[in-house]
Amino acid sequence: MNILIAMDSFKGSVTSLEAGEAVAEGIRQADPSAVTQIIPLADGGEGTVEALVQATGGKLIQAEVTGPLGQPVTATYGHLGDARTAVIEIAEACGLTLVPESERNPLRTTTTGVGELILDAIKNGARSLIIGLGGSATNDAGIGMLQALGYRFLDVSGQDVPRGGAALGAIRSIDATAVHPSLKGINIQVACDVNNPLHGEQGAAHIYGPQKGADPEMVQLLDAGLKNFAEVVKEHFDLDVQSIPGAGAAGGLGAALAGLLGAELRSGIDLMLEAVNLNEHLKTADLVITGEGRLDAQSSMGKTAMGVAGLARERGVPCIALAGSVTEDAGALNQLGVTAFFSILSEPATLEEAMNPERTKANLQQISRQLIRLYQARR
Amino acid sequence: MNILIAMDSFKGSVTSLEAGEAVAEGIRQADPSAVTQIIPLADGGEGTVEALVQATGGKLIQAEVTGPLGQPVTATYGHLGDARTAVIEIAEACGLTLVPESERNPLRTTTTGVGELILDAIKNGARSLIIGLGGSATNDAGIGMLQALGYRFLDVSGQDVPRGGAALGAIRSIDATAVHPSLKGINIQVACDVNNPLHGEQGAAHIYGPQKGADPEMVQLLDAGLKNFAEVVKEHFDLDVQSIPGAGAAGGLGAALAGLLGAELRSGIDLMLEAVNLNEHLKTADLVITGEGRLDAQSSMGKTAMGVAGLARERGVPCIALAGSVTEDAGALNQLGVTAFFSILSEPATLEEAMNPERTKANLQQISRQLIRLYQARR
Repeated sequence: MNILIAMDSFKGSVTSLEAGEAVAEGIRQADPSAVTQIIPLADGGEGTVEALVQATGGKLIQAEVTGPLGQPVTATYGHLGDARTAVIEIAEACGLTLVPESERNPLRTTTTGVGELILDAIKNGARSLIIGLGGSATNDAGIGMLQALGYRFLDVSGQDVPRGGAALGAIRSIDATAVHPSLKGINIQVACDVNNPLHGEQGAAHIYGPQKGADPEMVQLLDAGLKNFAEVVKEHFDLDVQSIPGAGAAGGLGAALAGLLGAELRSGIDLMLEAVNLNEHLKTADLVITGEGRLDAQSSMGKTAMGVAGLARERGVPCIALAGSVTEDAGALNQLGVTAFFSILSEPATLEEAMNPERTKANLQQISRQLIRLYQARR
Repeated sequence: MNILIAMDSFKGSVTSLEAGEAVAEGIRQADPSAVTQIIPLADGGEGTVEALVQATGGKLIQAEVTGPLGQPVTATYGHLGDARTAVIEIAEACGLTLVPESERNPLRTTTTGVGELILDAIKNGARSLIIGLGGSATNDAGIGMLQALGYRFLDVSGQDVPRGGAALGAIRSIDATAVHPSLKGINIQVACDVNNPLHGEQGAAHIYGPQKGADPEMVQLLDAGLKNFAEVVKEHFDLDVQSIPGAGAAGGLGAALAGLLGAELRSGIDLMLEAVNLNEHLKTADLVITGEGRLDAQSSMGKTAMGVAGLARERGVPCIALAGSVTEDAGALNQLGVTAFFSILSEPATLEEAMNPERTKANLQQISRQLIRLYQARR
């Protein structure tokens, strides 16, 4: 029996690979003759670089880049096993966790390091980029990134505007003549699971500004800046970035990537499943086991399981989904291709106890062992 | 597919029947064509009467009998569907829960009501009795029960000793000439899962006296009384009740039942499985689902699941065990015939939350649904 193990991480507890290895060990205990293959997954958020590098046999690379407050930070990104694709999580260069809580201020924070990471990846041979948005501390519409790539954003007196969201309102023109030539022909795909427009009530500043440290006044200022950015872009490139679904992701970085860099914004899990070639792996699978920290049909939780299940159903492969928490409405997952889903919990426990990594691994191992025993017992 | 559902109760949460019905509902959702049969089980302890009556289509009977403190209590017992077997839980007549905490005193408490229940059952047609020990407030070596059945226990001056454990030391002789004639030919089987001797360091008084309200002095007095009882019985009937495994169960009621009434002391679950004829039901089953509140290979928890699994294995029927808690060492259950075991928990929760009856039913239903979906998905 060939069993494909395609787990997401159990966030705050175990990585995708650790989860997959625990499941594989449980399967081995139940059936030493079973052939298992572990494909660590992620949904485009935290852990995406690690999972994709592990799944494809790639490597991790570190680069010193400009952090969100202008300070140098060491960011990690990945080159996949195909030696032509790089994967970047923008949070490594401009993430909220890089900014002490007292200094969170999206008027100041910049995406400059993201641009530097892109250049580093291309210098190292990447022709294709997968960029995971999410977790940014910024609201600069990606001008920091674009500046690092050679774009110039000029104010009324023709001077370059400074870094940070505060500068957006001052932009009057854009000079793209010095854009880094190595960007030419680079394919960029962006994992983006929000649909927010760039500005307005559903835009980046209003929806995500407060959690990045913006007070109501700052939100107004940032929103006006994003609007100005969209207008100048429209004037110069005849591009309407405001209305691109996801333009408002990562403080407007979505607009810069999709609009100016021609990137494709895609569902994170779809992008991941394609990058690891899950469809190909499913061809030889008799059963696939997926899972993640929480399965919840109503929320965005469960994206990985649903993505895997969708592909499995197309190929007629039974799909088991495991999670720490399974909400009451999870029954809907059965309609989406999940053959059966289970919580891995074994005893009453607090969330903190349940997230203990050793316990999570033991539970994953035990339930996998039991499920395979049962699966193979059918007479 | 024929699925036999043989659950114990999830103590403090749902009854055996409620658990079984929740599992059946989950199965129906997964496969409306599946044929389910629910056999509610118990392990000889609390819930045994209810489960056996439900499993065999019998009826519940109430009788007013003498309570542990001499007060009248209304006790419930059962007649099974075969119309010749009665099932009695002694706790209904002499249970600890019938005695306010401040009045717990095994020098005083009596098993009289147990004898009265036996007579009532025989009067109502029973020729065979199943008696569940456990939960008693007494340490009277069953003399109360025996007195109700016509035995006389006489002191040095030839007077009947009074009720209660305090009287045991005063017994000098036994008069069995007036034993109730209806007892003749009655088969008595006792569900008893302890092996304690009647007296001594592992005896009834030392091991169970304290939880019934005995202080160290009282324990000494009771133990001496049990020893005296054994000696008088030995003298009169040439019977060594001290060494019968389980003689010390229920404050020495085990000795009275096994010794003087010729009852067979048996593992509770074995007795139950025989009473409900599980072996016969397994003949047509493709799968059996059992379970109880807690599965724990090291402790006495999990007796029902292990009993069902043992019979299922003999017939080659796959057996699923479900529980609220599954301890880490539960893997040993697989060696005992449990094909696969699972905790029904779906989310981190306190023990109290996990035991909420509605939650337990919902969890039983959901996991049963998922397990059957998976079981039937095998290609």
